[in-house]
Amino acid sequence: MSETMARIVLAARPDGAPTLDDFRLETVPLAAPGKGEVLVRVRYLSLDPYMRGRMDDAKSYAAPVPLGGLMEGGAVGEVVTSNSPHFAPGDIAFGPFGWASHGIAPASHCRKVDPDQAEITTSLGVLGMPGFTGWHGLNEFGRPQSGETLVVAAATGPVGSMVGQLAKSMGLRVIGIAGGTEKCVAARELFGFDACIDHSAHGSADDLRAALKEVCPEGIDIYFENVGGKVLEAVLPLMNPHGRIPICGMIAWYNAGGLGESAQDMGLTAPKLWRNILVKFLSVNGFIISNHWNRFPEFLNQVAPLVADGSIAVKEDITDGLENAPQAFIDLLEGGNFGKAIVKVA
Amino acid sequence: MSETMARIVLAARPDGAPTLDDFRLETVPLAAPGKGEVLVRVRYLSLDPYMRGRMDDAKSYAAPVPLGGLMEGGAVGEVVTSNSPHFAPGDIAFGPFGWASHGIAPASHCRKVDPDQAEITTSLGVLGMPGFTGWHGLNEFGRPQSGETLVVAAATGPVGSMVGQLAKSMGLRVIGIAGGTEKCVAARELFGFDACIDHSAHGSADDLRAALKEVCPEGIDIYFENVGGKVLEAVLPLMNPHGRIPICGMIAWYNAGGLGESAQDMGLTAPKLWRNILVKFLSVNGFIISNHWNRFPEFLNQVAPLVADGSIAVKEDITDGLENAPQAFIDLLEGGNFGKAIVKVA
Repeated sequence: MSETMARIVLAARPDGAPTLDDFRLETVPLAAPGKGEVLVRVRYLSLDPYMRGRMDDAKSYAAPVPLGGLMEGGAVGEVVTSNSPHFAPGDIAFGPFGWASHGIAPASHCRKVDPDQAEITTSLGVLGMPGFTGWHGLNEFGRPQSGETLVVAAATGPVGSMVGQLAKSMGLRVIGIAGGTEKCVAARELFGFDACIDHSAHGSADDLRAALKEVCPEGIDIYFENVGGKVLEAVLPLMNPHGRIPICGMIAWYNAGGLGESAQDMGLTAPKLWRNILVKFLSVNGFIISNHWNRFPEFLNQVAPLVADGSIAVKEDITDGLENAPQAFIDLLEGGNFGKAIVKVA
Repeated sequence: MSETMARIVLAARPDGAPTLDDFRLETVPLAAPGKGEVLVRVRYLSLDPYMRGRMDDAKSYAAPVPLGGLMEGGAVGEVVTSNSPHFAPGDIAFGPFGWASHGIAPASHCRKVDPDQAEITTSLGVLGMPGFTGWHGLNEFGRPQSGETLVVAAATGPVGSMVGQLAKSMGLRVIGIAGGTEKCVAARELFGFDACIDHSAHGSADDLRAALKEVCPEGIDIYFENVGGKVLEAVLPLMNPHGRIPICGMIAWYNAGGLGESAQDMGLTAPKLWRNILVKFLSVNGFIISNHWNRFPEFLNQVAPLVADGSIAVKEDITDGLENAPQAFIDLLEGGNFGKAIVKVA
């Protein structure tokens, strides 16, 4: 066992978009796991948009990462030492190990990953938190019905691609939004979306709306919200009566600081947003998947076989080296990733 | 039978708050009811905030009133002629007769009102559309639980007072918001609210929020939304995780024209609104009661006895004379009414 570990800590709170200076790579002594804990050598760590929120000192559903503290996040690796009967050395475990080469966590906060079921990277994406977010949000709050139209942005990301593929299998017309031709082609050909609109080719919300309208001739019944911003502004007037909007994120606004200034100029005001909800009888539900882990086994039972037989496609974007995690994360917030953002640590 | 009828039509589309010039009183020949229709002599007509929306030429859940057209609305009166087996002359009928001395409507669009059950004016308020709106919105979208805290504005209006009284009877802590001392006293003493905040005594959303915080020490679980504006801005940061916001109206914004300009300066931006829904896992549902008439009999069965035995209190604000309906409506939009706004026609 190595005597030290590498980790990335929050060096400064970003003002708007994070920069490399907001992160610091450290080497620290490796602690020993306590009672009921496991020590894991991380192989892959997950980069997810929600981590941007943890970098701000703002009240949210989770406490912020303290300055100088380990960047939080899920990771998967090999158990080195276990003080729990539920894990043995050599087991593959997913847990809250953060941006680090090693992690220690209570066994009760970890889950065993079966490397024969799928590549272990999938525990971070399609068969992990993002995939589960798409599955749960779609079923619980989207209430999809065959023949309806669904729109989801970040269509080639791990949430959007799950939502799109599941909805398609239920008989919905599924429209993606993504940045760039390559992603739009993948949305259609790899993930089977009926159409995918390139938001980078439509500068304004009005332009984007016109493009959406062409491929949503019967309006939009479900808008699975993970981006906010221009996409929300484009989509809202196209929502059908009794439409549903599950909200799991709003990445377009994560770098907006106080979430006000940069958005003040957009055409979508709070009264307009509220009025749309009223006059179209929309059902809007915010959710965070960590409140719903009790349904994770059901998700895994249903979706793991679909991944195994290829009916749910997987697209991962793997960056090599812990030291490159900050840049990969910065890219993720700007839509630079193509598929689930993962860092290979060891 | 009179040969003519009086009615109020839309003379001009208002720019912001309506003025008397936007309405015109006319005398027109009285038509005869067609097959399956009834002719009713109106005794009381209802004034409701939603009518402001019908005056604009904007897409909504209902078509606008055409220029020169009868101002729409519910009214109650005595059947004069009936071409339907469901009504006899002398019956009391509620129907979509508008702002007029007489009305003709298909019998299928009317409902019989039992004058022995309660004063017939209650068919416009507590036992009509507004009361039903409160009952349905609270139960269906508010999902009240004993011990929770509910906030509703326009607390002495027909929706707010119904919501408050029902919620109180279910064991919730119930906080009203109203304009002026007299209404706040009535909210507490007549309708039994635990507290009522006078929004006119708190100029900014921050001030209003501070006052609410004192009387909602455990936060807000249900915000029954009927006003929007400053109240929404005050309430939102106090919402508890998993809170519910049924939206039946937003009267503060009805006069705002494009619903943008006047609200652009408020602190509540669309991103802030959206972020609150996400990070607090709120459930927000717009609804319009006309989609839910199938539950009206259930409502009436449950609530009419409560009105009869006095456990649901009634407060009506009756203006005398059809010609005074426009001014009473202008007052209503500015919160000048005290209780359900009704016009006595005959």
